[in-house]
Amino acid sequence: MTKSSSGNFFEDFRLGQQLPHAVPRTITTGDVALYSALYGMRFPIQSSDAFARATGLSRAPVDNLLLFHVIFGKSVPDISLNAVANLGYADCRLLRPAYPGDSFTARSEVIGLRENGSGKTGIVYVRSTGFNQTGEAVLSFVRWVMVAKRDHGRPAPDPVVPSLPSAVDAAALVVPDGFNASGYDRVLAGSLDLFDDYAIGERIDHIDGMTIEEAEHQIATRLYQNTAKGHFDAVVQRAGRFGRRIVYGGHIMSLARSLSFNGLANAAFIAAINGGRHVNPTAAGDTIYCWSEVLDKQALAGRDDVGALRLRTVAVKDHGCEAFPAPDADEGASVLLDVDYWALMPRTALDTAASNGVARPPATHA
Amino acid sequence: MTKSSSGNFFEDFRLGQQLPHAVPRTITTGDVALYSALYGMRFPIQSSDAFARATGLSRAPVDNLLLFHVIFGKSVPDISLNAVANLGYADCRLLRPAYPGDSFTARSEVIGLRENGSGKTGIVYVRSTGFNQTGEAVLSFVRWVMVAKRDHGRPAPDPVVPSLPSAVDAAALVVPDGFNASGYDRVLAGSLDLFDDYAIGERIDHIDGMTIEEAEHQIATRLYQNTAKGHFDAVVQRAGRFGRRIVYGGHIMSLARSLSFNGLANAAFIAAINGGRHVNPTAAGDTIYCWSEVLDKQALAGRDDVGALRLRTVAVKDHGCEAFPAPDADEGASVLLDVDYWALMPRTALDTAASNGVARPPATHA
Amino acid sequence: MTKSSSGNFFEDFRLGQQLPHAVPRTITTGDVALYSALYGMRFPIQSSDAFARATGLSRAPVDNLLLFHVIFGKSVPDISLNAVANLGYADCRLLRPAYPGDSFTARSEVIGLRENGSGKTGIVYVRSTGFNQTGEAVLSFVRWVMVAKRDHGRPAPDPVVPSLPSAVDAAALVVPDGFNASGYDRVLAGSLDLFDDYAIGERIDHIDGMTIEEAEHQIATRLYQNTAKGHFDAVVQRAGRFGRRIVYGGHIMSLARSLSFNGLANAAFIAAINGGRHVNPTAAGDTIYCWSEVLDKQALAGRDDVGALRLRTVAVKDHGCEAFPAPDADEGASVLLDVDYWALMPRTALDTAASNGVARPPATHA
Repeated sequence: MTKSSSGNFFEDFRLGQQLPHAVPRTITTGDVALYSALYGMRFPIQSSDAFARATGLSRAPVDNLLLFHVIFGKSVPDISLNAVANLGYADCRLLRPAYPGDSFTARSEVIGLRENGSGKTGIVYVRSTGFNQTGEAVLSFVRWVMVAKRDHGRPAPDPVVPSLPSAVDAAALVVPDGFNASGYDRVLAGSLDLFDDYAIGERIDHIDGMTIEEAEHQIATRLYQNTAKGHFDAVVQRAGRFGRRIVYGGHIMSLARSLSFNGLANAAFIAAINGGRHVNPTAAGDTIYCWSEVLDKQALAGRDDVGALRLRTVAVKDHGCEAFPAPDADEGASVLLDVDYWALMPRTALDTAASNGVARPPATHA
Repeated sequence: MTKSSSGNFFEDFRLGQQLPHAVPRTITTGDVALYSALYGMRFPIQSSDAFARATGLSRAPVDNLLLFHVIFGKSVPDISLNAVANLGYADCRLLRPAYPGDSFTARSEVIGLRENGSGKTGIVYVRSTGFNQTGEAVLSFVRWVMVAKRDHGRPAPDPVVPSLPSAVDAAALVVPDGFNASGYDRVLAGSLDLFDDYAIGERIDHIDGMTIEEAEHQIATRLYQNTAKGHFDAVVQRAGRFGRRIVYGGHIMSLARSLSFNGLANAAFIAAINGGRHVNPTAAGDTIYCWSEVLDKQALAGRDDVGALRLRTVAVKDHGCEAFPAPDADEGASVLLDVDYWALMPRTALDTAASNGVARPPATHA
Repeated sequence: MTKSSSGNFFEDFRLGQQLPHAVPRTITTGDVALYSALYGMRFPIQSSDAFARATGLSRAPVDNLLLFHVIFGKSVPDISLNAVANLGYADCRLLRPAYPGDSFTARSEVIGLRENGSGKTGIVYVRSTGFNQTGEAVLSFVRWVMVAKRDHGRPAPDPVVPSLPSAVDAAALVVPDGFNASGYDRVLAGSLDLFDDYAIGERIDHIDGMTIEEAEHQIATRLYQNTAKGHFDAVVQRAGRFGRRIVYGGHIMSLARSLSFNGLANAAFIAAINGGRHVNPTAAGDTIYCWSEVLDKQALAGRDDVGALRLRTVAVKDHGCEAFPAPDADEGASVLLDVDYWALMPRTALDTAASNGVARPPATHA
């Protein structure tokens, strides 16, 4: 009778179902400014039109995580409003760069369903895809969520669990159209360390920390038009499992990405997210630190200017990462995020600022 | 002697007085992004340039409430800096759409004055009008405020109370130039319910809640260049009537409008505000919920693509609206806002996404 | 071994050293909207494209303090990440206006070094310069910071202390290219008081106050890509000297500038900052008030439309400025900022709104 929606329950999904998502959205330089201000983002190609142009792009592209959050946000009202838990994501690929002024829509397909033994919940697997105003796919990812059943008596569907890659194949990574690292100024970018300076197994403590305020994560999550109640409604949350508002997991991803600039300044683009886990919930007042490990390195076919680093970034709360804390180790209770992704990094670069007679001081490696 | 202003007092106003307001302002996509992030706004025409173009507009117009707040904010330093209370508003009409890049000014005319029996305060009625850079009126509304007298001994002016309409005549509502609902995609918009699906007397619980933080309402109110001290100055407020900062009433209007998307997704434009009452003050920490009732429906002359719904939206704090709480009922103490407005809603629409072979799941009406 | 940086220490600096700073940055209307929303900025030339055009500019320029914060922010990772104290700044000159869409870089030169007697710290003097995308200098300033030594045993360099002007010469002040006050509408701007209405020695209480929230100063400081830990990391700060996060000093400058609109509405541009002192640290929860004094007035060669006012603005916390509190007076403990700057103010203006038959009410001088 009422026209408002309480979201889909497990029995509302069926295999192969296509769900077009509301709401179409243009990403503008206003969104980019807010994104920058919420995380302190410093990656140069996304920060400066002039710098981006020097690398062959038409202007500064939208940060790939901002694009991810916007597409993800669209899927929430249809997929995860009644989620008991967001269990994981996989095979997230950035297919085309997004530029301010582009307009996006999103659609999901149900690719797996499995009712849980309790008969009260089930797991829904969807592939969500974002499109730009010309209908080109810009981003695609799989996620799976545990969703409540409305009617516990409904029979379970035949279980289908999709087969998912543990990591995106480096051959599938997309370098943004027009990009060429020959014009990438690493002195301006903030670090002399390029692709070939990183070794598999190398670990980097990103040192800096950032404390989260309620207003910040709420502003971020609304910017993404993500409607998950747990992030905004203190009254409902007070009565719930955590007793308080929970920070959108993607907010931690963006904070960690921003903090990782200190040690990965030339990790210019996130090209894929292989998987990720929100190990513990995050709340306002938590202070986020992170560290990264180089899991793999791959040259890209036909490109000698840029390579792909497979990185694992672990974010924790309330203490530094000198000891590289991991979920299954002593300090595991403080781990918030454990994410595995591919970043594109220049193999060659200009040192324009230096060639202008400006010498950079030796970096301090504390 | 000093050049700073403490605002006008009751005896500074005279009937027929024209008050040009500072400060001229351009509304940009930056303002739109902030507005979106502060309220989680999801109405598709204001969210996406591509969607707006499909309905005949040149790009996504500025949300009419953002325009209202900006024009209202300009009037504060001249009209209501010494207001004891904002008593009401009426006859607010949106006359022309605003687009990012447009520059606005505002002016008010004193249309009524009535001193109160105490001789310490009086009521000032003004009609405020906003103009764009070409001098066209974009917005007009009447409001009345109780203003302190500086000198209690000054004689009272002859009382003049303007006659105000209880509602804007539907024939006066303006459909934005160029708009045609034939290109409005209701699947992308997020709801299949159009004008003809709503019935007079129908009530809608908008379900979702949002908790307000101090930083959020301060950022919003400064964005509107509204200088009312009560919203920003914790020291002065601590010594005052409420003991704390009070949220700008328009912030609650925008939150309620945003929450009302869940049930009124196709209420594409606010075309007029017939009246409104801030029943109780709002402070940071309050969680806002709301419900709406369809008060009236009107076809628009010469248009079969769009009609006007007269809506009442009631916002409350700290509990849901399943019981449709009203100011004069049991839960009246929690009611914050009671507003009566006209929204334009398509009567016809495309289902593009559906025609692309995408079937929308049946909406869940919990 | 690690690739992350902990910043430079005293012994990393040498006289004449040139430090190119990361990160290049485009300032957009998105940044301008955020800046406006964080401070409630109301100066008309920066607020309205239409108003700016009427004064001969191509559009609303970027607020000079926003430009300052962005350039300052770039210098932080190289200059002051290990600062024990920011001791002062001088000779800050705005050389060219910045417009939305311009891209900026920054560079510093070490112009002085002096180790302290303790052998544990030293003072570094740098001149920092900001450049736009065509390589033109837009802003230049000197600052000096006390920086920790990494190795206390390292010998001290020969002390060099640069000679700095106590104030920028008025003859060096730059009026933005194209600006002409003949089209400046003082009624729209919000005050009839022009350059010739101000007297040397005149003091102005700016009356209004604003309370700072953690989210606000964090969002601001990240917008400037300023990485100083003390502003963001509650855990590190809890163990430190102040026990809590400290607000970026520039945030107080911008708040004071915004509040000073009430009394200095026509102080259209900050043209130079002669010097400034952050007298006490500021934390979230503090409510900022300020007052100004006219220190000097100078006509500008070849211009009869605009003059320069040398202003001192003092910001305090938690009480009003009726008594014009100064750092060395009774209420000195509440003083946060004491800044000395040149502002450009029209000497002639239009009263367009008034000539349109609109009479402005007499300003109320409480």
